[in-house]
Amino acid sequence: MYSKDELNELITKGVGNLKCNEEAARLYDPVRYMLSIGGKRLRPLLTLMACNIFSDKPEEALMPAIGLEVFHNFTLVHDDIMDSAKVRRNSPTVHEKWSLNQAILSGDVMAFIANEYIALTPQPHFMKVFKLYNNTATEVCVGQQMDMDFENRPFVSLEEYLRMIELKTAVLLATCLKAGSLIGGASDRNADLMYEFGRSLGLAFQIQDDILDVYGNPVVFGKKTGGDILVNKKTFLLIKALELATGAREVRLKELMSSTDFNPSEKISEVTSIYNDLGVKEISESLAADFITSAFAYFRNVSVSEVRKGPLLQMALSMTGREK
Amino acid sequence: MYSKDELNELITKGVGNLKCNEEAARLYDPVRYMLSIGGKRLRPLLTLMACNIFSDKPEEALMPAIGLEVFHNFTLVHDDIMDSAKVRRNSPTVHEKWSLNQAILSGDVMAFIANEYIALTPQPHFMKVFKLYNNTATEVCVGQQMDMDFENRPFVSLEEYLRMIELKTAVLLATCLKAGSLIGGASDRNADLMYEFGRSLGLAFQIQDDILDVYGNPVVFGKKTGGDILVNKKTFLLIKALELATGAREVRLKELMSSTDFNPSEKISEVTSIYNDLGVKEISESLAADFITSAFAYFRNVSVSEVRKGPLLQMALSMTGREK
Repeated sequence: MYSKDELNELITKGVGNLKCNEEAARLYDPVRYMLSIGGKRLRPLLTLMACNIFSDKPEEALMPAIGLEVFHNFTLVHDDIMDSAKVRRNSPTVHEKWSLNQAILSGDVMAFIANEYIALTPQPHFMKVFKLYNNTATEVCVGQQMDMDFENRPFVSLEEYLRMIELKTAVLLATCLKAGSLIGGASDRNADLMYEFGRSLGLAFQIQDDILDVYGNPVVFGKKTGGDILVNKKTFLLIKALELATGAREVRLKELMSSTDFNPSEKISEVTSIYNDLGVKEISESLAADFITSAFAYFRNVSVSEVRKGPLLQMALSMTGREK
Repeated sequence: MYSKDELNELITKGVGNLKCNEEAARLYDPVRYMLSIGGKRLRPLLTLMACNIFSDKPEEALMPAIGLEVFHNFTLVHDDIMDSAKVRRNSPTVHEKWSLNQAILSGDVMAFIANEYIALTPQPHFMKVFKLYNNTATEVCVGQQMDMDFENRPFVSLEEYLRMIELKTAVLLATCLKAGSLIGGASDRNADLMYEFGRSLGLAFQIQDDILDVYGNPVVFGKKTGGDILVNKKTFLLIKALELATGAREVRLKELMSSTDFNPSEKISEVTSIYNDLGVKEISESLAADFITSAFAYFRNVSVSEVRKGPLLQMALSMTGREK
């Protein structure tokens, strides 16, 4: 089997070889930029590792793996416009560095570059992978729509929130694992289990991200904490707090959310202290733990030897902070 | 063979059945809107007519034909943002009616809806059609990039202009004809001739559109004339005029272009009169005629009976105003 480093090297080389149309350098400059400013390459890595569980030729999944990474970066470029984000991975976002139009169009072309890479999926598996991809890409758009809709709504239920992060984040991780498995020759049942493994992992991952935005170590987390609190982002923690808060605490939480004239660090510390009082962190951690348990249950049921599962298991443990 | 009306009926019904994800009505409302405010359905019609030349089952090309129409509408939604256009087909553009974010995201989902339809191309032809489509979709983005770049450049050569309209407009018409032909079972040679037929037709079509923007009958043309002149759009006419104008006429044309304080109808009439003096209309008509001649030469070489070519020939004649 390939080591994680060997697979990462394949990905880095593959992304570096991205075919660009030199007739329109201005169109591809932001594409190259976006793919060069880092990112953990989590999605292509999961694709290759999943493939490697079932096959000794994970490189056969390399092209679609890159396609999935390009798709992911396409969504980031457009999401950053919609969220008016100025910084991504410690670098200016594409619409900040270039312009709105440049960010729209460079994003668009990435969707078709993704297609071109996915078209290079080995023939016997291509159609299944392509249909899975299309379905997922549509779902990711639906997830982003729900996320935007939530901003303008006073109340969002936990169920709605979970569905949103499922669509916006989890199904793509699930798709990477399923696509890699299919290309590796997995049975439909094993590929579906890998999908569910990825879906549960993705849900846990996103809830953990919500927790880290409040409680993370900024040095490890890579950005300042409290960002979600400042913009009243309907994270799992806020939704749960709104559900649990009563009396004076409920009034104060809603005041903090509706006030437009506030001291940022005071707002962060006051909302965090309400979260603390309500035990929202523990509730969130417990839900994330449930999803992780369920993820590993799916993974356990994948009928392949433990030895082959080893590297992906390690990877999943490290993603969810359970690394030994 | 099917009549044009029968094919149009197939398209209308197919577009009407567009599968939407009901979980995010807000995401699909603009998609349905965009596909309902008209448009000539030229691209799916060309796809089906091309298929019908080689096969008695043009309905086999219906799904990819709709995919190509959805793709075309995707480009319109995003182009309208980039051009700050307020009106499309006599209706408000998506970003005007909804919002910028809504227009970006609805456009994005259309790209994946297009994929889903193209995935329904009959199997033996699918991969060829998909690769053709991806290549073309990328080219259309490159064409839009060139068009935007031209706005900020004082000089654009005729060669650059022709390459831009080839990418932005002509290759998609060419792709519709080629895809339909392939699905109809055409040989590669015939399919390539159909592509060239469409490419030349598209070039002629765009140059004629440039002419109509200045000289068209607003009632027939469907919008006010002179719009391109007002925004100094680098059309074939303006580029040619800048190439030919000398002395006082050159100075005046450049003055008119750089002035920000002008009476719109005076600018239109003065630029038009410079075009008239330089014979730019005739030169443009002559170039369009050359492309039409070359288009029909390609079409003539397609090795199939004249009877089968009849309906598409009529359609092409009507597109280029040569209808008898």
